[in-house]
Amino acid sequence: MTKIAVLFFDVLGTVVDWRGSIAAEAGSFLTRHDAGHIDGDAFADAWVGRYDASVEAVRCGDRPFVPLDVLNRENLEACLTGFGLASSALPREDLESLNLAWHRLKPWPDSVEGLSRLKERFIVAPLSDGNTRMMVDMAKHAGLPWDTILGADVYSAYKPMPEVYLRACTFLGVAPEEAMLVAAHAYDLEAARLCGLKTAYVAREKARDPSKPADIEPTDDWEYRVGDLIELAELLR
Amino acid sequence: MTKIAVLFFDVLGTVVDWRGSIAAEAGSFLTRHDAGHIDGDAFADAWVGRYDASVEAVRCGDRPFVPLDVLNRENLEACLTGFGLASSALPREDLESLNLAWHRLKPWPDSVEGLSRLKERFIVAPLSDGNTRMMVDMAKHAGLPWDTILGADVYSAYKPMPEVYLRACTFLGVAPEEAMLVAAHAYDLEAARLCGLKTAYVAREKARDPSKPADIEPTDDWEYRVGDLIELAELLR
Repeated sequence: MTKIAVLFFDVLGTVVDWRGSIAAEAGSFLTRHDAGHIDGDAFADAWVGRYDASVEAVRCGDRPFVPLDVLNRENLEACLTGFGLASSALPREDLESLNLAWHRLKPWPDSVEGLSRLKERFIVAPLSDGNTRMMVDMAKHAGLPWDTILGADVYSAYKPMPEVYLRACTFLGVAPEEAMLVAAHAYDLEAARLCGLKTAYVAREKARDPSKPADIEPTDDWEYRVGDLIELAELLR
Repeated sequence: MTKIAVLFFDVLGTVVDWRGSIAAEAGSFLTRHDAGHIDGDAFADAWVGRYDASVEAVRCGDRPFVPLDVLNRENLEACLTGFGLASSALPREDLESLNLAWHRLKPWPDSVEGLSRLKERFIVAPLSDGNTRMMVDMAKHAGLPWDTILGADVYSAYKPMPEVYLRACTFLGVAPEEAMLVAAHAYDLEAARLCGLKTAYVAREKARDPSKPADIEPTDDWEYRVGDLIELAELLR
């Protein structure tokens, strides 16, 4: 087996708990704005639920690339409308701040320790649909010890478009087989494998993406299959 | 004065001692290969001395963008020839390793502490002609605590081309006036200022670039002028 030098990580769901983090911030926002009758979890599911369709428009060429911050902001508007709230009646500043909840997503309990251990032996970097500033803020906020952060805006493309995986390998100076994608989503691992990268599946029970049909039950085809990032660090010692 | 959110740093000369580091590795290489009569410092000056002309060919459009690792490798060959050494007689592996001396450049004594302090209040990122993997290796080797690393290969351009400064600001999610370039070279600061960034001059006496005419004596036009990065951290507290 070729020696692995670089570990790329899916972030939303795999490293951070996006749904839980957004539900908490949305719940607090709704309470502050006299909409406490709307459940934060339901709001988060509706907001995150619009994610894939909006990204898909870029993937299939229906619209030029725009960063995830922009898509999230549009989806937030649509989501508020869906819950019967007029965004025009809400302070613009507060809406901007709620949109930045994506910059403050909280890591799973094992993420910081797991990444720190893996960083001793590998180059560790996110490979996410998030834009660079989103990922930088998230890393500073959560203490994620990335070696570098190249967001989707660097590639002007969203996963699972192959150029994302391939250009990431080029920037990190490795052949695809010298890199491994670590992710909780089968579609992402499948695309990475087709590009020649190695693959590690992380079972994040709570990471289901409400914007997509349930993941196909992951097969045993991945090079590694772990419960969390500390387990991966142990395996790769 | 607009609030600064992002500090970009020139690296070669400003954060790391490129000439000293390369002289040390070249000296050791030459001794090992029965060429101990050639002075490591002279070899480093000759190698680094070819830097600007090779980068200039890309800047002015005479050749398509290639990463600095490639330019350095070509310049190393030319340099060996210049000293009367036949690169064909030297082990390819050893030459590759010497070329990677650029991935192991040593920081100035204040760099790690200065950057660590500045990182508490700002996003800190290199803005260098180095390619991403070169800067990642250098950071891991030297303990440089960058928030992210976007090399010249991300921009397919070399400083002082304005797109480097402007696209860096876009990726970091700031307007140019919310960013500051920290550098020991006047041409770099001048270009950043023309793009709207703020500027901080670091006086690195030993950072003279042998590939360029001596820097114009820096004027007082820069927003800040400091002796090292710890002094900058104190000033920006």
